Amino acid sequence: MSVAVPAASEATTPFGDRLVDRVLARESQLILGIDPDLRALWPQATDGPDADGPPAERAAVAVHRHCRALIDAVAPACVGAKLQLACFERLGPPGWRVLHETAAYARDAGLLVIADGKRGDIDVTATAYGQALFGGVASPFGRLPGLGADLATVNPLMGSDAIAPLVAAARAGGGGVLLLVRTSNPGAADVEDLALADGGTVAERLATLVDHFGGQGIGRHGLADVGAVVGATAPGHLLRLRELMPRAPLLLPGVGAQGGRVEDLAPAFAPGRAGGLISASRSIASAPALDGADPATAARREAERLRAAAWSLA
Amino acid sequence: MSVAVPAASEATTPFGDRLVDRVLARESQLILGIDPDLRALWPQATDGPDADGPPAERAAVAVHRHCRALIDAVAPACVGAKLQLACFERLGPPGWRVLHETAAYARDAGLLVIADGKRGDIDVTATAYGQALFGGVASPFGRLPGLGADLATVNPLMGSDAIAPLVAAARAGGGGVLLLVRTSNPGAADVEDLALADGGTVAERLATLVDHFGGQGIGRHGLADVGAVVGATAPGHLLRLRELMPRAPLLLPGVGAQGGRVEDLAPAFAPGRAGGLISASRSIASAPALDGADPATAARREAERLRAAAWSLA
Repeated sequence: MSVAVPAASEATTPFGDRLVDRVLARESQLILGIDPDLRALWPQATDGPDADGPPAERAAVAVHRHCRALIDAVAPACVGAKLQLACFERLGPPGWRVLHETAAYARDAGLLVIADGKRGDIDVTATAYGQALFGGVASPFGRLPGLGADLATVNPLMGSDAIAPLVAAARAGGGGVLLLVRTSNPGAADVEDLALADGGTVAERLATLVDHFGGQGIGRHGLADVGAVVGATAPGHLLRLRELMPRAPLLLPGVGAQGGRVEDLAPAFAPGRAGGLISASRSIASAPALDGADPATAARREAERLRAAAWSLA
Repeated sequence: MSVAVPAASEATTPFGDRLVDRVLARESQLILGIDPDLRALWPQATDGPDADGPPAERAAVAVHRHCRALIDAVAPACVGAKLQLACFERLGPPGWRVLHETAAYARDAGLLVIADGKRGDIDVTATAYGQALFGGVASPFGRLPGLGADLATVNPLMGSDAIAPLVAAARAGGGGVLLLVRTSNPGAADVEDLALADGGTVAERLATLVDHFGGQGIGRHGLADVGAVVGATAPGHLLRLRELMPRAPLLLPGVGAQGGRVEDLAPAFAPGRAGGLISASRSIASAPALDGADPATAARREAERLRAAAWSLA
């Protein structure tokens, strides 16, 4: 089926151009994944006065401090921060507040904000997710602010009408979306790699959806506002998927803890440096503290190593 | 790939048995979909003292009142309530609080609670979603309570290792999960209906995942704790999918506003009345107010009509 999404307004800088400008200005294609692990928070998380209230409130305050310390430590090496929504949702109601606060803190540090929730649902519901993650919604009670993300990850299983409202919501504010195409986990083989009767795989078909939806949102630098998640753990797929999505920014998770290597990702950068965004979470936040370094120093060192490795590829 | 999930503990009543008992006790297979639309809240939403605070707080209070009134009106005709997470998330931080409060209110009304978020992510993240939606998590700050859902919808695109942690989290507390198999929207044709080189369709392959994961969680009544979402809008798929998932509870959305008819859903009930759960949202909350009836009376009438239509099929 074909679902129309309005083209980007001329008054708004298309996301692809914002991305190119930001990558060049920061000399980085590195995305800091923020997936706070309650059992591995940095010492800064429990510094300062104890928070009052129930466990969820105290946990949320600690997670907020951890996230700020992480951003302070590595933002200079990064172009964006990817917030893993699940890790905030498990904090309960205070978690959603800390999610908003952390997004604002990352933005103030000059980072693009990626809401990693992998949402996808029927049209009216996808519209509600778009309001939640991007620009908010006008209501009889006044305007409800959204998370203000620059990008959100989207699960395309439900097809075009589940994708279109999220593209529209992102595009209206100069943002974009990243559709799951070929993820970094072993289970990606179960469904995404299935061969289709008409040729190609499920992932390749998803890639054609990325190219279709991005076609109306291409900036002057040639990058679209609809990109794809392609795991760094299976670089063998990358060349073919890049052929099918020549203008898509690719988010490449799975470097480090999941086994992916920056050196294998060159095809991602075919449309230019901003065509590939390297995402790393645990490998930065839990970088081995050599020489007795504190977590912030270790994280900064690992982030700078990843940044330099990716920058030298293009 | 094969991912192991522990079998249900003998100390916990398996979800399938809880579902059968509840359906028989309430003589209903109807699920009330709660998708609060900010522009169509019931008059009760703005009764009572005005809430203070910013628009999001005032909207959240109104949504909470609306949801309580809706549950009060139609719970007697229903066996469960399906909370559409997107509609709470767009309220911002207060929305997650109202989500928890509404889940508790539905539970107190005797309803099973379905968290409809269609989550799906790599193993560590799926674990975090499981903690958020089901039983919570122990943390250094004390136990963080989860939403306490009985069921959650799960997007299976990422495969077995994205599904297993959610099945495990649900099963540990006597709950279950519902994998998207063939959804009710037009875009379902884009990916779910693709024909595979080895025969069958993507949806049929997803159905085999449902059957696989449910195999270790079958209750004495023969129903599993892993079910499927199969849209009521395409009943032609239902017979074949039921063959592939003989023990799965099926959630059947799309009745009413999306065009599905209860009368077409008989194959869902092959394993017994609890084998098919009819989900309706807008068609109940916005039922036409004939004879000048108020929204609650109109909703109650429509819910009872749907309940009786489904009950008479089995």
